[in-house]
Amino acid sequence: MMARPYNFSAGPAAMPEEVLQSAARDMLNWQGSGMSVMEMSHRGKEFTSICETAERDLRELLAVPDSFAILFMQGGGLAENAIVPLNLGQGGVMDFVLTGSWSEKSHQEAARYGSARIAASGQAQAFCAIPAPSTWQISSNAQYVHVCSNETIHGVEFDELPDLQALGSAAPLVVDFSSHVASRSLQWSRVGLAFGGAQKNLGPAGLTLVVVRKDLLGRALPICPSAFNYQLVAQNNSMYNTPPTYAIYMAGLTFQWLKSQGGVAALEARNLAKARLLYSCIDGSQLYTNPVDPSVRSRMNVPFFLRDEKGQAIADPSHPRNTAFLEGARAAGLLQLKGHKSVGGMRASLYNAMPLEGVQALVDYMREFEREV
Amino acid sequence: MMARPYNFSAGPAAMPEEVLQSAARDMLNWQGSGMSVMEMSHRGKEFTSICETAERDLRELLAVPDSFAILFMQGGGLAENAIVPLNLGQGGVMDFVLTGSWSEKSHQEAARYGSARIAASGQAQAFCAIPAPSTWQISSNAQYVHVCSNETIHGVEFDELPDLQALGSAAPLVVDFSSHVASRSLQWSRVGLAFGGAQKNLGPAGLTLVVVRKDLLGRALPICPSAFNYQLVAQNNSMYNTPPTYAIYMAGLTFQWLKSQGGVAALEARNLAKARLLYSCIDGSQLYTNPVDPSVRSRMNVPFFLRDEKGQAIADPSHPRNTAFLEGARAAGLLQLKGHKSVGGMRASLYNAMPLEGVQALVDYMREFEREV
Repeated sequence: MMARPYNFSAGPAAMPEEVLQSAARDMLNWQGSGMSVMEMSHRGKEFTSICETAERDLRELLAVPDSFAILFMQGGGLAENAIVPLNLGQGGVMDFVLTGSWSEKSHQEAARYGSARIAASGQAQAFCAIPAPSTWQISSNAQYVHVCSNETIHGVEFDELPDLQALGSAAPLVVDFSSHVASRSLQWSRVGLAFGGAQKNLGPAGLTLVVVRKDLLGRALPICPSAFNYQLVAQNNSMYNTPPTYAIYMAGLTFQWLKSQGGVAALEARNLAKARLLYSCIDGSQLYTNPVDPSVRSRMNVPFFLRDEKGQAIADPSHPRNTAFLEGARAAGLLQLKGHKSVGGMRASLYNAMPLEGVQALVDYMREFEREV
Repeated sequence: MMARPYNFSAGPAAMPEEVLQSAARDMLNWQGSGMSVMEMSHRGKEFTSICETAERDLRELLAVPDSFAILFMQGGGLAENAIVPLNLGQGGVMDFVLTGSWSEKSHQEAARYGSARIAASGQAQAFCAIPAPSTWQISSNAQYVHVCSNETIHGVEFDELPDLQALGSAAPLVVDFSSHVASRSLQWSRVGLAFGGAQKNLGPAGLTLVVVRKDLLGRALPICPSAFNYQLVAQNNSMYNTPPTYAIYMAGLTFQWLKSQGGVAALEARNLAKARLLYSCIDGSQLYTNPVDPSVRSRMNVPFFLRDEKGQAIADPSHPRNTAFLEGARAAGLLQLKGHKSVGGMRASLYNAMPLEGVQALVDYMREFEREV
């Protein structure tokens, strides 16, 4: 059998081959139950055990303290942009740090539910840098402060989460870690709530992970839909409404795979090596360019541009040099490298399931393409 | 290989064996793409084609007119209980016909977003009957009238959708068809919006289907989350946020299977035969009983009770006769027959994927159990 191609999709993204093999094997009969996981009542003992194991493994993997609840929900990060202010905003002031498309969207959506303010913005630097926390204008009455710890589209990442207490604020920190979770360790002592879609580092699309400090439960506005009320979801062990059972199962298999790889510390070391390999290829070339300040470059999402004959970065996806690059990549077994439509160029996403060999194959191809162009 | 057991779960529920086999076969490499469907960008050509085919097949299968939009969403029926009033209620009067647990929940949730009124209720008949439409008190200013066309828990079903125009109302009819969709034909001329989770007749949990008349789009309240704004979802072909890609794929395979079975007309005939077989077994026995008025008995969900020595229906799931019945059923390859916790007793769900042979096996077992008890 031919080796599988390397898949650099920004999400839904590559999953570990072992996880897919296990799912295929058990598709018609999970562990002798006579049922596919898809066919199980979410209240039956089989699925209950799958869900509890997944939550326990995730808690261990991410070192989530007992003072936090883990919720399995639906709707993705975009839905959480409304669900978070509905649950935590109390109709008051909410502060946002804008570092790219995702935090901008979060800010816009929250304005439906209270006073959404901008504490800091990297827009003037075209989101190629992150304003230093010491410069943030945090409202004294902020119900929470929102950051996106890794911007999937702009490719910028907080190397360290801000310490709001050290900045003189008692507001809880809300972290959108959709494209970041489980790629590196996380300082829970600085976090009030973290949320993210599973479809990047943790599993398939259709599952949203919410990790919330238990003392923040019970603050939902009356207009918060019951199905998205964190307290109700927590009280019902994520079974308030029918959960996305198969997505939870696949995420659970992925958690077990992540543990088998040595856990988050080992993955972080591997992710760092993968990112260094690709950025050093880009920085060492005349053809490729990445505009992000090296101190905040994302390890997960690496947007880059090819230059034209005059040395200008080419955003247009239909430029012949871009189409030639993508066609050659596909022929070399390197898939889904096209950049996000709002930015153009290329993007390689290097989530947990991407092996170092995949990045090496990409770098080899990029060097060969540069020699021949 | 041993035959698969018959799975009577109320949802998530049995899926066609051919669909599961196809999914297992393509898990690591969908049609030579080198990717699992779970690994595909939702914006790539592969997944776009999967999604478009699924929508087209569903439109054909359900005979949905072009004047309706088909939306693939998340959150299930429980989330729609909030999403419908947020999109159609306009903060005004909404009428509900209560026929069981699900319509009761819909009514309660809608009260967050306007004036939720009860047009009729079967509660006085313990939800064993449905009030005749001619007796409904429809508000003259109702933004919509909500019915649940099949109550999964109480096992009652509208044999025909109400004709609101004939009742003198211009309000659109909202139909919760979660446990009904594709089990029988549907008169779209009477419908404004229909919604349902996929996890009963159409696929796995994690996908919600919404079919909405296009002239009803654009009425959402400002507090409606963007991710659940029908107009935005429709304008973006269900890709406003990352959709539950694998659940859409599985539903799409199920749509193809349903078409291969002869479509909804053939399925309806089969579902009628299945229901008749089981109800006639219950009605012909001294041991089993179903309390629902025969004119509104559900073809999809058949709750029934065993009687004790005194002839009383036994709700308590821990009663020895109930546990013996369930243990024997499991040994006979008949799974997930335990009734809903709010009702007790037993429940057999006979969705599209349940073959007549499965119901025959259940009936055979029930008769044998009755002889031996």
